Amino acid sequence: MPSSRSAPVARVSQETCNPAVCAPIAEDDKRALVDAVETFIFDCDGVIWKGDSLIEGVPETIAMLRDMGKRLIFVTNNSTKSRAGYLKKFLDLGLEITADEVFSSSFAAAAYLDSIDFPRDKKVYVVGETGILGASSSSHWPPYDRELDGVGIQHLGGESDGDKKVTLASGQLMEHDPDVAAVIVGFDRNVNYYKIQYATLCIRENPGCKFIATNMDAVTHLTDAQEWAGNGSMVGAIKGSTKREPFVVGKPAPFMLDYIANKFGIKKNQICMVGDRLDTDIMFGIDGGLRTLLVLSGVTSETELQSESNSIHPDHYTSKLADLLTVKK
Amino acid sequence: MPSSRSAPVARVSQETCNPAVCAPIAEDDKRALVDAVETFIFDCDGVIWKGDSLIEGVPETIAMLRDMGKRLIFVTNNSTKSRAGYLKKFLDLGLEITADEVFSSSFAAAAYLDSIDFPRDKKVYVVGETGILGASSSSHWPPYDRELDGVGIQHLGGESDGDKKVTLASGQLMEHDPDVAAVIVGFDRNVNYYKIQYATLCIRENPGCKFIATNMDAVTHLTDAQEWAGNGSMVGAIKGSTKREPFVVGKPAPFMLDYIANKFGIKKNQICMVGDRLDTDIMFGIDGGLRTLLVLSGVTSETELQSESNSIHPDHYTSKLADLLTVKK
Repeated sequence: MPSSRSAPVARVSQETCNPAVCAPIAEDDKRALVDAVETFIFDCDGVIWKGDSLIEGVPETIAMLRDMGKRLIFVTNNSTKSRAGYLKKFLDLGLEITADEVFSSSFAAAAYLDSIDFPRDKKVYVVGETGILGASSSSHWPPYDRELDGVGIQHLGGESDGDKKVTLASGQLMEHDPDVAAVIVGFDRNVNYYKIQYATLCIRENPGCKFIATNMDAVTHLTDAQEWAGNGSMVGAIKGSTKREPFVVGKPAPFMLDYIANKFGIKKNQICMVGDRLDTDIMFGIDGGLRTLLVLSGVTSETELQSESNSIHPDHYTSKLADLLTVKK
Repeated sequence: MPSSRSAPVARVSQETCNPAVCAPIAEDDKRALVDAVETFIFDCDGVIWKGDSLIEGVPETIAMLRDMGKRLIFVTNNSTKSRAGYLKKFLDLGLEITADEVFSSSFAAAAYLDSIDFPRDKKVYVVGETGILGASSSSHWPPYDRELDGVGIQHLGGESDGDKKVTLASGQLMEHDPDVAAVIVGFDRNVNYYKIQYATLCIRENPGCKFIATNMDAVTHLTDAQEWAGNGSMVGAIKGSTKREPFVVGKPAPFMLDYIANKFGIKKNQICMVGDRLDTDIMFGIDGGLRTLLVLSGVTSETELQSESNSIHPDHYTSKLADLLTVKK
């Protein structure tokens, strides 16, 4: 355990969930955790909502933490919506948050290119949905609905290539733009061979072309009825033809955390990551030196957490976010 | 180098291409190689043809080797055609071969399931084109145009799922057949999210469901003008969502070689693998204990072969198959 995490709060039992069988977070530990933490980073699906339904007690818990002066940040690996798209979902569910509190992997992809001073005369090819591109005309929050557009980066691909077919006559080749200097791969339910070949050509043939993945999630909850093949499939397709590994901007890779910590000037040991997935959310928190709280309101069951085959141990766990409400004075 | 390969033919200089800079095969070594070898296994694309054009001197070389009593076998990782489809291509190009001499990875996938006594009351889901399924009505060689059908294995998917779309309403789930006990993934220019999700569901949710790849080729020569994203993309997509590794039946995996050696009762050190790709053909030969001859008429250049970064060294190399014609008496 990094020394930066164990020092500040003597009352939190650091042994609770690590590494063996453990009990849900005790009342004293809840209080100590909330007192010690300045910023809560929440995963969304499985913590805040499931599909289109708010999880019980979330608004009250959010309101309580705000009253206590905590900074709240909501992160999601889903790149199909822009920040404005997520903001709309929060507001539709009755949660009062601001666009600056939302970090999606679609935003992170654009922020990453901006952070490395991506040349503005170059272009990005996108396998993915509108969230990465931006430029939705229906947004009420235009500054937050323009991920690549918002940082002035030219792009092609995405939804406009959704219906393209490849026919293979003798001598035929697919032309590609030599000015594409990065390929971003996000979840894309309209993935097709045209997009795979276009992205492959850019990465293999344009010198120095970057390969960026919004995330590597194997499966995702597109609907509340089933797990669906996630961006691991789209990224896997491009890995398979290029033999290249992508730079990942979503959880559990560290980019979003570093970006958030720098932007707000937060010490990592004063952040608590709250999530429902061991291999993304909790790993993201552990790797980043954050405190971690697993909630069982999403995909991870108590049996999975406690099983001998699980090697990812959060600092604490509880059934749902609203369990924190008992610390209210 | 395996001892089984170095013993029989003293006149072949075993040091020629292994491991450092080497020269094209000498006349004496050509003669020794042809004398020592009972069976030649040829890769097709880059050795026999390029796209739709026959490579210079191939018919004469094939005829010479036949006259010398050599067994000839043609193997291809391409699963988009059945054996009958390939036979038609050979005959259209003026090469007289028989269907029993052709081994494609589409045939290998069916042969593999047959070899493990795949239960005939179970089914296979196919990501891929017609070659795997069989059942083309246009074939003149019906016994060789029915890969899965030919071994009596029920299948679904393939081309019939090419136009299916996924719409994601709340509560929606994709039904899948619990009797699917294997997923075969071959090159598929109509790959789409429906097929990816269907294959993912079968592999993740049907207990014991096998995951079979016709090959893992990163790129392939679909046309003679360009390299196209290969089956590495389709397999990569399913690996990405299932976190499972496939059983590979095509080169360089050993299944096809073992099948051919058993079927014809050939000793492996009496086989020479002739191919144009280091990482599939030559690797397949080296791993299988075969003699190996690289031809430069396909994708590998002499510079790549001789570069320090190349770690795959054939026993011999030459510019094209027809260079063997000089051994004719």
